[in-house]
Amino acid sequence: MLKEMLENVRGKTPLIHNITNYVTVNDCANILLACGGSPIMSDDIEEVGEITSICGGLNINIGTLNQHTIPAMFAAGEKANELGHPVVLDPVGAGASALRTNTALELLERIQFTVLRGNISEIKTLASGSGSTKGVDADITDQITEENLDQAVSFAKSFAKKTGAVVAITGAIDIVTDGNNAYCIRNGHAEMSKITGTGCQLSAMIAAYITATPENALTATAAAVCAMGLCGEIAKKRMTSEDGNSSYRNYIIDAVCNLTSDELERGAKYELQ
Amino acid sequence: MLKEMLENVRGKTPLIHNITNYVTVNDCANILLACGGSPIMSDDIEEVGEITSICGGLNINIGTLNQHTIPAMFAAGEKANELGHPVVLDPVGAGASALRTNTALELLERIQFTVLRGNISEIKTLASGSGSTKGVDADITDQITEENLDQAVSFAKSFAKKTGAVVAITGAIDIVTDGNNAYCIRNGHAEMSKITGTGCQLSAMIAAYITATPENALTATAAAVCAMGLCGEIAKKRMTSEDGNSSYRNYIIDAVCNLTSDELERGAKYELQ
Amino acid sequence: MLKEMLENVRGKTPLIHNITNYVTVNDCANILLACGGSPIMSDDIEEVGEITSICGGLNINIGTLNQHTIPAMFAAGEKANELGHPVVLDPVGAGASALRTNTALELLERIQFTVLRGNISEIKTLASGSGSTKGVDADITDQITEENLDQAVSFAKSFAKKTGAVVAITGAIDIVTDGNNAYCIRNGHAEMSKITGTGCQLSAMIAAYITATPENALTATAAAVCAMGLCGEIAKKRMTSEDGNSSYRNYIIDAVCNLTSDELERGAKYELQ
Repeated sequence: MLKEMLENVRGKTPLIHNITNYVTVNDCANILLACGGSPIMSDDIEEVGEITSICGGLNINIGTLNQHTIPAMFAAGEKANELGHPVVLDPVGAGASALRTNTALELLERIQFTVLRGNISEIKTLASGSGSTKGVDADITDQITEENLDQAVSFAKSFAKKTGAVVAITGAIDIVTDGNNAYCIRNGHAEMSKITGTGCQLSAMIAAYITATPENALTATAAAVCAMGLCGEIAKKRMTSEDGNSSYRNYIIDAVCNLTSDELERGAKYELQ
Repeated sequence: MLKEMLENVRGKTPLIHNITNYVTVNDCANILLACGGSPIMSDDIEEVGEITSICGGLNINIGTLNQHTIPAMFAAGEKANELGHPVVLDPVGAGASALRTNTALELLERIQFTVLRGNISEIKTLASGSGSTKGVDADITDQITEENLDQAVSFAKSFAKKTGAVVAITGAIDIVTDGNNAYCIRNGHAEMSKITGTGCQLSAMIAAYITATPENALTATAAAVCAMGLCGEIAKKRMTSEDGNSSYRNYIIDAVCNLTSDELERGAKYELQ
Repeated sequence: MLKEMLENVRGKTPLIHNITNYVTVNDCANILLACGGSPIMSDDIEEVGEITSICGGLNINIGTLNQHTIPAMFAAGEKANELGHPVVLDPVGAGASALRTNTALELLERIQFTVLRGNISEIKTLASGSGSTKGVDADITDQITEENLDQAVSFAKSFAKKTGAVVAITGAIDIVTDGNNAYCIRNGHAEMSKITGTGCQLSAMIAAYITATPENALTATAAAVCAMGLCGEIAKKRMTSEDGNSSYRNYIIDAVCNLTSDELERGAKYELQ
């Protein structure tokens, strides 16, 4: 099943419009190319509607949002909805400032997202309408563990039902759900959190996956999450004692570039709840 | 001949003012350092005139143009013209939105460029005044092949004559022409298109080459195009089965850093038409 | 002594708010993670006060300053002062344009910085109120050598006394002083200047170090400067004949990621004046 998701991306080369932060934008572009998609970045209000129109999917990431890019996010999101294009929201740092929280909430209100991807603190902020994230990482008190997993799955399912979006909460254990079924995914490696923007990269890759298989956004999202985690594992094995987070970043994108559909099918570690 | 072009860059360390997109800007800076130049990035209208003045050349790339950087492109371009500095235009995505097409056309009207570098779809858009580029890559129907090469060379020559600029169309076969002579260049590797921004990097490098040898912009541009392609070949040979587009990006910049003038002279594959 | 500085960063994971340029921002984020800190980037006037409040320290870098980020720099700096957070200023290209020089001078006037880090030309511009930097590198005529070192140390000490900040001038020989004591540091490698943004990365790292040990900003800054230089040496040893500035960049960040406190203590090369 996951196998075809990857094959669809490579077969269709989905063109993805990204309105994203300037911190990790280059890695997002390279991972889109690596997975089989094609990136275009554009955030000016005068052109985002047109750019969205020529693309197959849209990825909105609020990592370095500002007064000029926020209206562009709304305009692009509305155009994507009008055209029936898949749209991903990555609410980076929601909870860390009123601007981030309010922008994310208003985006959620005005735009129908296909997938919401964030860490547990960000998604909790979206669900509750407020939050206290410390920066761009999940709060330790929020983190999903084996102990609170069932509770987290319930929370994710109910938020997916409420929003009509696939909810992807990523961390040590990832949860991907459409409200009915939930994938609990155990791929990945703890050191991925030492690289800036692995979450942003994953959101971009999800956009490519759901654009290639829009009729099955749940499985497509789960496949992208498994692929990213699996590539984190493959890349980790490649590391020598001299390598650190910078080489690790390169190796992960390299692994995404080389990942075959069979490797994904075999290497994906998940259970359905 | 190409040999001296590279030596001039290393000998003169041309300082290049870049108004460029935030996606590939870091790679542009590193490749400028790698080839022997020195980069400065600045896009605020209040300072671009001054920054251009202290530099030797200017590189304008519209990859993530916006309302604030567009006026800065005009101001910097006009100042560069006033000072007689070489100026490169990289019309990223011209044809993909009215904003991109119109900005590129207006830049072309108001500023005398030394070199126009883009893929065939972007350059066709500039020449015809409209286009239908799908994103930032060339349309398949536009691509230059052995079959349509003569026709493409004629087109490039006539556009070079019309604009008074060296026209550099890059793709599987690259064409560099001043309207009279055309270099048809067969360096490079297909996988370079899996890396974001190899075109942007080349434009930055061309700016360094033509600034180091302003009296021979045609040969300087051809040398930079050959160098980039040759480094794509050298870097490709270095790749292991685990490497993908992220390592390839690093290896290309590394190769530019290590390229000698003899290697360029020997490795350049071109014919003059 | 330096040893504990590094251990404090790893033990406390200081969260650093960065208002920085879009050229080297990704490397700044990755080096902050590598050294043991945590980055957040934010430059919109509406949220910078809040973002600074949830962070431990602030890093202001004027590398690609513009009309929108300049007011954000002031707002964030004033909030950091109010809260007693350590603040670093990296006056990239001060002297290269009136906008850069004046912004840096006004920041210096209105905000109490904990550390000022720049090359000798940038710091001279701050001290004298004007300058003639050619781009973002130090002028050759300004460079610190064994011959003019004593004079440079006197200059740095007097500027540190005047500003109440630790002054860190980096180059072939680095000087770090609080006005009373000065570290003259001889770590590093000349080829680090072939990588874009090693200075920006160091400023970000200094922010993490002084935030982890605010009671000893002088030693913390010296430790960060030694660590960066030492990692430049370690990374250099790792380079093969095929590696160039792009791999060198990765290896330096990798080395920062792997650096132990014992290695720092042993490898730091400095004398106190």
